[in-house]
Amino acid sequence: MSEKERIVWECIRTETGPDLRLFRVRFDWVRNPRNAHTVKATVLEAPDWVNVVALTRETKIVVVQQYRFGTRAATTEIPAGIVEVGETSKAAAVRELREETGYGSDEWEYLGYVEPNPAFLDNRCHHWLVRNAEQVSRPEPDAGENLLVGEMGLDELRREIEEGRLRHSLALTALAYVFDLRPLLK
Amino acid sequence: MSEKERIVWECIRTETGPDLRLFRVRFDWVRNPRNAHTVKATVLEAPDWVNVVALTRETKIVVVQQYRFGTRAATTEIPAGIVEVGETSKAAAVRELREETGYGSDEWEYLGYVEPNPAFLDNRCHHWLVRNAEQVSRPEPDAGENLLVGEMGLDELRREIEEGRLRHSLALTALAYVFDLRPLLK
Repeated sequence: MSEKERIVWECIRTETGPDLRLFRVRFDWVRNPRNAHTVKATVLEAPDWVNVVALTRETKIVVVQQYRFGTRAATTEIPAGIVEVGETSKAAAVRELREETGYGSDEWEYLGYVEPNPAFLDNRCHHWLVRNAEQVSRPEPDAGENLLVGEMGLDELRREIEEGRLRHSLALTALAYVFDLRPLLK
Repeated sequence: MSEKERIVWECIRTETGPDLRLFRVRFDWVRNPRNAHTVKATVLEAPDWVNVVALTRETKIVVVQQYRFGTRAATTEIPAGIVEVGETSKAAAVRELREETGYGSDEWEYLGYVEPNPAFLDNRCHHWLVRNAEQVSRPEPDAGENLLVGEMGLDELRREIEEGRLRHSLALTALAYVFDLRPLLK
């Protein structure tokens, strides 16, 4: 067994837990290869997520402001949502941008994906860039959404980050493709 | 009411859900100020988290490799953990670095915090930098941990990101303080 192989844990039992709407809970009993100790691991089975860095012709970024139920505060973020069953991440990106903001464009580029939290989430967050985005329709928020849509120049977006209104880790990893975050995150 | 005030939702009922070990579930019934529609929101009440960019005298970064139960895969990450009740985020950073890797130093700098996911998590992830870190003791993993500890130069760490072995969003937001991620994340 190589050193790398010795870090893989065997799953010795798995059990479905409660459905929490955003994710289904699963419990895995996994055995530590180091000491045979068994751990009951909580896993949240979630659909993949997608978010979009939408650049306008004037190099502004499309942002959404909304009240977030986790932190009970209004945040500044980029358009984002869930990849529906049977949908590609690009189709989800196009749809979420259109529904949340009314913006569209044909110039899409895949930036890659991150793992939101591999410790307990099984999903990916796909980052998409779209260039020359423009408003092509009215936003169509569902009944459970309430969004303010706007455009911000890079300096304005930097201030949102510096002043703490944009702290969503997945918005930041997407924006990290577009500009250097180092001077901003203090 | 200002435009900003109109996006805040009123919580009209709250209920405790199952204890999932990593977090306690809470359900909030919140009213959409746009249309008075009520949403049952799932909130995960979690302790704050902390992670550490530990730089050695030779400008290498201390990394940990472990099997992650969410993605069922081995990952490369930076040392990280939970802020215990009554603990400061700095004390948690010092403790987690010591327990997971055996490294220590006195030269700590707070980098700031991000919100792991304000949509359904109520917590923060605090990022700490420590300079001139060196191995001062043996790692003391608890029974439910199994970690490979190593040091990587910046070029080696860039390859871990480029080749997809380091995708944890919170490790990336911490590392975004230290070097420009733009060329790496494709």
